Amino acid sequence: MRIPYSDMVSVFSRILESRGMAADDAALAARLFADASADGVHSHGLNRFPRFVSNIESGIIDVHSRATLESRIGGIERWNGNRGPGNINAWICTERACDIAAENAIGVVALRNTNHWLRPGNYGIEAVRRGCIAIMWTNTMPNMPPWGAKKAAIGNNPIVLAVPYGDSPLIVDVAMSMFSYGKLEKYSMDGTECPVDGGFDEDGNPTRDPEAILKTRQVLPIGYWKGSGLSIALDLIVSCISGGLTTQEVGKLDSETSLSQIFIAISMDSFPDRKELDAKIEATLEAIDASEPMKAGMNVHYPGEGMKHTRDQSMRLGVYADDAVWSKVLEML
Amino acid sequence: MRIPYSDMVSVFSRILESRGMAADDAALAARLFADASADGVHSHGLNRFPRFVSNIESGIIDVHSRATLESRIGGIERWNGNRGPGNINAWICTERACDIAAENAIGVVALRNTNHWLRPGNYGIEAVRRGCIAIMWTNTMPNMPPWGAKKAAIGNNPIVLAVPYGDSPLIVDVAMSMFSYGKLEKYSMDGTECPVDGGFDEDGNPTRDPEAILKTRQVLPIGYWKGSGLSIALDLIVSCISGGLTTQEVGKLDSETSLSQIFIAISMDSFPDRKELDAKIEATLEAIDASEPMKAGMNVHYPGEGMKHTRDQSMRLGVYADDAVWSKVLEML
Repeated sequence: MRIPYSDMVSVFSRILESRGMAADDAALAARLFADASADGVHSHGLNRFPRFVSNIESGIIDVHSRATLESRIGGIERWNGNRGPGNINAWICTERACDIAAENAIGVVALRNTNHWLRPGNYGIEAVRRGCIAIMWTNTMPNMPPWGAKKAAIGNNPIVLAVPYGDSPLIVDVAMSMFSYGKLEKYSMDGTECPVDGGFDEDGNPTRDPEAILKTRQVLPIGYWKGSGLSIALDLIVSCISGGLTTQEVGKLDSETSLSQIFIAISMDSFPDRKELDAKIEATLEAIDASEPMKAGMNVHYPGEGMKHTRDQSMRLGVYADDAVWSKVLEML
Repeated sequence: MRIPYSDMVSVFSRILESRGMAADDAALAARLFADASADGVHSHGLNRFPRFVSNIESGIIDVHSRATLESRIGGIERWNGNRGPGNINAWICTERACDIAAENAIGVVALRNTNHWLRPGNYGIEAVRRGCIAIMWTNTMPNMPPWGAKKAAIGNNPIVLAVPYGDSPLIVDVAMSMFSYGKLEKYSMDGTECPVDGGFDEDGNPTRDPEAILKTRQVLPIGYWKGSGLSIALDLIVSCISGGLTTQEVGKLDSETSLSQIFIAISMDSFPDRKELDAKIEATLEAIDASEPMKAGMNVHYPGEGMKHTRDQSMRLGVYADDAVWSKVLEML
């Protein structure tokens, strides 16, 4: 079914307020969930909302906390998420990084002790709206084996890279694993294979069979050994800069919490050659779009390009919602 | 054969001086080439030296130029490489980023109009030696098709992420393509397949056959569409920050030159909790090493771990050199 965007925001907001969240935080969190669904990222929109509420109810998320500035170390600010809502904390740090960038060309905000930030792209989109390039990433609990290992010991540590370009910015929002567990479960439910190898089966062979991967939990890093190395580095860098927990330390907790994140914003307006830079971006993205496709009838797009179309459709026709999940959410009212 | 490290440095240095390079630059460039070979990165060590010299002779590299500071924009320095030697320029910017980081916790140096920086890891290793985390990348000429496209339009844009850890730091040094052209040529010469899919064949099917990929030049990005997106973002970010050419713009030149690079250093000493951070790094890297391997008899390592062993061996027994390449280099004396 399709739900009007404002209805979806309103329902989310009322539920969050009823769980003790302050009205302005609830409104923001509700909007971020609805935006994810409106942009087609259902896994971190409506579909993730029930888990967010249950994490509030179980105390993993402290609904009364918000990120606070802990220290300034040269060009770096360290913030403490105080185990508050991950989306609110990430939003605060995104805004702060953009504020610093407006003054200093670059803003670097590191956040420790926070919760899952839900849809990463939201923060890249906001930075871009404020005229900033964004470089942001988070660590996670151990959910991927290091290259050559049997058991999960590193995170899939999603990264967001965003570059302003009119109303169709470049938004690269990728985890260091080839597929998330949510995606593997979706393939399994749909009875389809992964489009490329997604992990290893019980015999240690690469496989596209989502059920085999869900069994071994040996998901494949992007670029095999390369993504494994990138994941380790992203984790250690973010936990050092923020002074927060590493993936290994998060793995010792009862649940995935107290994560470390970094928010780097670079203000395009600070550059005297901004016009030339905008032209460079346009020329590159247009050339990619105009690429001759490998197979006839296909189109080549840059990441984020399709989002505007999906968003427009959601605003016009309503936001797509899985019937069962939406019913479940309505019961939380 | 194996050549004593100091002999290799001396030969490189004399050749570069004979091509007009100032003595101190020649000594540094020679050391960087020898270090790459000593650490086992032959493709960007000895094996690349003849091409470096021919690029000097053909004027792509201006042997008399060095990177110079162009402007300070808030927390960002923009440098102009003046088409000087890429390794000397990258070294200057690495040192500068570390100098700024020593004062400001983080140093951000953007470099435009430079040449190929040869072995990326060298700059990560130097930053780490100075107690800094390193985040550095370069763009390249178009050498990889964007996801779904037939022809190269994006770069493989290598990135270096480095984290200090005693004499075995974490050094992640990866391009956004699964295999470099050099590596594909090596597989082809050796008559072996790529260990995983490396590109597409003429029918548009993924393949491990290096010759098929060298024919289509459709190399595979790491993580398929993910690496394609990362490559586009890395290119646009680095060319905006530096004010330099994009991959697309480099592709219009007669040869691969006037590249854009970024050098971010974060000083570990600036953090009051440095001891705890060092302990976190140690715990993570030791846990990875201690991982149960997926297949019996294998070992799990973090990136950069094996380097010290190779380096020690090179210093003890001499640096491995391909006979034919070494002979060719000696003829340049």
